[in-house]
Amino acid sequence: MIAQAKPDGSETARIEAFSDGVFAIAITLLVLDLKVPRGLSPGASLSAALLAQWPSYFAFLTSFLTIGIMWLNHHRLYTLIRRADHVLLLLNGLLLLGVTVVPFPTALVAAYLGAPQERTALVVYSGTFVVIAIFFNGLWHYAAWRLRLLGPDVDGDAVRAQGRQYAGGPVFYLLAFALAWVSPVASLAVNFALALFFALPPRILVTRNGATAGRG
Amino acid sequence: MIAQAKPDGSETARIEAFSDGVFAIAITLLVLDLKVPRGLSPGASLSAALLAQWPSYFAFLTSFLTIGIMWLNHHRLYTLIRRADHVLLLLNGLLLLGVTVVPFPTALVAAYLGAPQERTALVVYSGTFVVIAIFFNGLWHYAAWRLRLLGPDVDGDAVRAQGRQYAGGPVFYLLAFALAWVSPVASLAVNFALALFFALPPRILVTRNGATAGRG
Amino acid sequence: MIAQAKPDGSETARIEAFSDGVFAIAITLLVLDLKVPRGLSPGASLSAALLAQWPSYFAFLTSFLTIGIMWLNHHRLYTLIRRADHVLLLLNGLLLLGVTVVPFPTALVAAYLGAPQERTALVVYSGTFVVIAIFFNGLWHYAAWRLRLLGPDVDGDAVRAQGRQYAGGPVFYLLAFALAWVSPVASLAVNFALALFFALPPRILVTRNGATAGRG
Amino acid sequence: MIAQAKPDGSETARIEAFSDGVFAIAITLLVLDLKVPRGLSPGASLSAALLAQWPSYFAFLTSFLTIGIMWLNHHRLYTLIRRADHVLLLLNGLLLLGVTVVPFPTALVAAYLGAPQERTALVVYSGTFVVIAIFFNGLWHYAAWRLRLLGPDVDGDAVRAQGRQYAGGPVFYLLAFALAWVSPVASLAVNFALALFFALPPRILVTRNGATAGRG
Repeated sequence: MIAQAKPDGSETARIEAFSDGVFAIAITLLVLDLKVPRGLSPGASLSAALLAQWPSYFAFLTSFLTIGIMWLNHHRLYTLIRRADHVLLLLNGLLLLGVTVVPFPTALVAAYLGAPQERTALVVYSGTFVVIAIFFNGLWHYAAWRLRLLGPDVDGDAVRAQGRQYAGGPVFYLLAFALAWVSPVASLAVNFALALFFALPPRILVTRNGATAGRG
Repeated sequence: MIAQAKPDGSETARIEAFSDGVFAIAITLLVLDLKVPRGLSPGASLSAALLAQWPSYFAFLTSFLTIGIMWLNHHRLYTLIRRADHVLLLLNGLLLLGVTVVPFPTALVAAYLGAPQERTALVVYSGTFVVIAIFFNGLWHYAAWRLRLLGPDVDGDAVRAQGRQYAGGPVFYLLAFALAWVSPVASLAVNFALALFFALPPRILVTRNGATAGRG
Repeated sequence: MIAQAKPDGSETARIEAFSDGVFAIAITLLVLDLKVPRGLSPGASLSAALLAQWPSYFAFLTSFLTIGIMWLNHHRLYTLIRRADHVLLLLNGLLLLGVTVVPFPTALVAAYLGAPQERTALVVYSGTFVVIAIFFNGLWHYAAWRLRLLGPDVDGDAVRAQGRQYAGGPVFYLLAFALAWVSPVASLAVNFALALFFALPPRILVTRNGATAGRG
Repeated sequence: MIAQAKPDGSETARIEAFSDGVFAIAITLLVLDLKVPRGLSPGASLSAALLAQWPSYFAFLTSFLTIGIMWLNHHRLYTLIRRADHVLLLLNGLLLLGVTVVPFPTALVAAYLGAPQERTALVVYSGTFVVIAIFFNGLWHYAAWRLRLLGPDVDGDAVRAQGRQYAGGPVFYLLAFALAWVSPVASLAVNFALALFFALPPRILVTRNGATAGRG
């Protein structure tokens, strides 16, 4: 990445635009995992066939929420990150790799939740989110280390608070991952609950020039 | 969402860009529901096989128009909404959830219109639009309540007029939903007609600084 | 669309961005029509199976070029169109409807070129391009009529030259459509040649402020 | 392309935006090549079935990295290219054609690596990257020839250094292509290694106004 010293964050603008594109496509491709029930006999109930697909909807919703939250956090990250370098681009690429993969484990869960192989499906699914959460932390810590790539007006306390908040991600997702070995359905439920939890407004952030961010 | 006080709506710019991406992908993925007739014997007529798929085209067109109209209204909404907070982001996310789902009930209708299970297909299809219309109203009312997130130059009368117009959506879609239990084909036709109706130019809106919007 | 009087074409910016998204997705989805040969016996030749799919590649290339040219012309159009109204949005939506449909007739041609049903496939395929070319002309003539939505610095002669150029589209595509009834392969070849022809640089356009456009 | 003399690269902005869209979609569609194992008997191991699909993951990762690197280089290219003409648009279109095709040879490798037909799959796969690397060089050399389309502040030495760097691409990919005839797996590994290698930070580039680009 050519480090052109452009004002007000335009240096990261194309990274954000490309990332937004990948997030938007990955979140929309999830719908392809919702399959129309085929081969019903004329007397068979479509409603029953649709209801029997509840693992598909549960996995779809969880993945939709999780990718949505990731986008939100990615967005928030780049309101603090103002400069880009080559390593940031690579770490951002790793994060996008994780995001684009999500439809695959989602399809696994949709296909195998309730089947004897559901444990493997959920281990892969929640494992994917562990890896993504780690990539997220890597991206943040690289950018925030000694305020390397942050804007000049960012407050150090806010950065540390943000770091502590992100650090929780891998821990929580590891719990869901561990739970997958014991109870796959509970693991999916925890992943769903985590997405809801992370959708709550963040702690108040204060940047030095007084712009504030709060609970809606 | 960090509430940065940027001028002229740039605060909502990335929400709009991400939403546009989701709308554009969802509307383009609809084409995947148009299936090439396979397994024709050498003497069979491809035209007949294509014509027999008319429910696919009808459902495709209706969904295309409906998502197109939603995009238009979303676009119009954000010419009035100038600030973003966390709740707006969540409500916008719910709306996008509804939009990304549309290809699934569209495929249901394409597969089952004319079959004994068509009622279920149309109930799910028109039910999806009821839910989206409700999300739309929720987004608007949250942003417009006491002009919370609107621009400083927006006229209160225009806001109330806009609100009344949006309020019609859920009512009309509920009618199509109710009709689905009686006549699935008529319900699809009503959904199609609604999309055409909403494609008509909106009422004249006047903002305080005199910019006007009219019938083309 | 609220007709806000913003300077330098920002009024049409979100239409262009949304259209670009649809063009980019439609052109990229075409690859899904290239199918991996399945069910080969261990001794069967994959190269032979791939070569036998030449209609897929021919149809893919033709559609890719055609959508690419449409994007280019759409782009060029909006360097002249500076204002938007509701009718323009609807006409633009019709054009996007045509563009999103293209992967379906492309898949038809890929499946049936060389089969007894190839005529129907090519009639649908080239018919789609006739319709899109007509939509394109409709969009241009609506915007250009009495310079309705054009920039104040656009030269009338340039507009008329542009109009004559676009008018050729439907005529040429009608020829390919007529040819489909006689020789489907020739019709596809003409569509391919048309895309190559339209890829040639346009006539020189001169706007009143002296900006020129030429042959590269 | 109407050659409007806009300041600071806005002339190429819409080309970059459209290209970004195509890159983002192509890289995200790769996940569709990861197939959920179907038809497992109740006692069969899903982990074993997933592990047996290792060629899919290998091909997915290699293609993801390669498209990511292409995006990065495309991005870097357009920090130097400041003007657009019709030929640039066509060459850019050829490059995008190559990028959108990538999911197809990726699916070929996923389906046939380890099968008797793996040689053909890898020849097509690495051949695709040879062609894309050639298109990349064509685009660069057209733009850079006598600094035709570059910014006025670009240093001639930097341009020649960049040219030498790009020139390596086709040579390396030709090696992977040649290797495919001998050892398909080794060819895939070389393609993977090339993507990692090109992900390393570029040589230091210096533009005349002193902005520098370095190793992160």
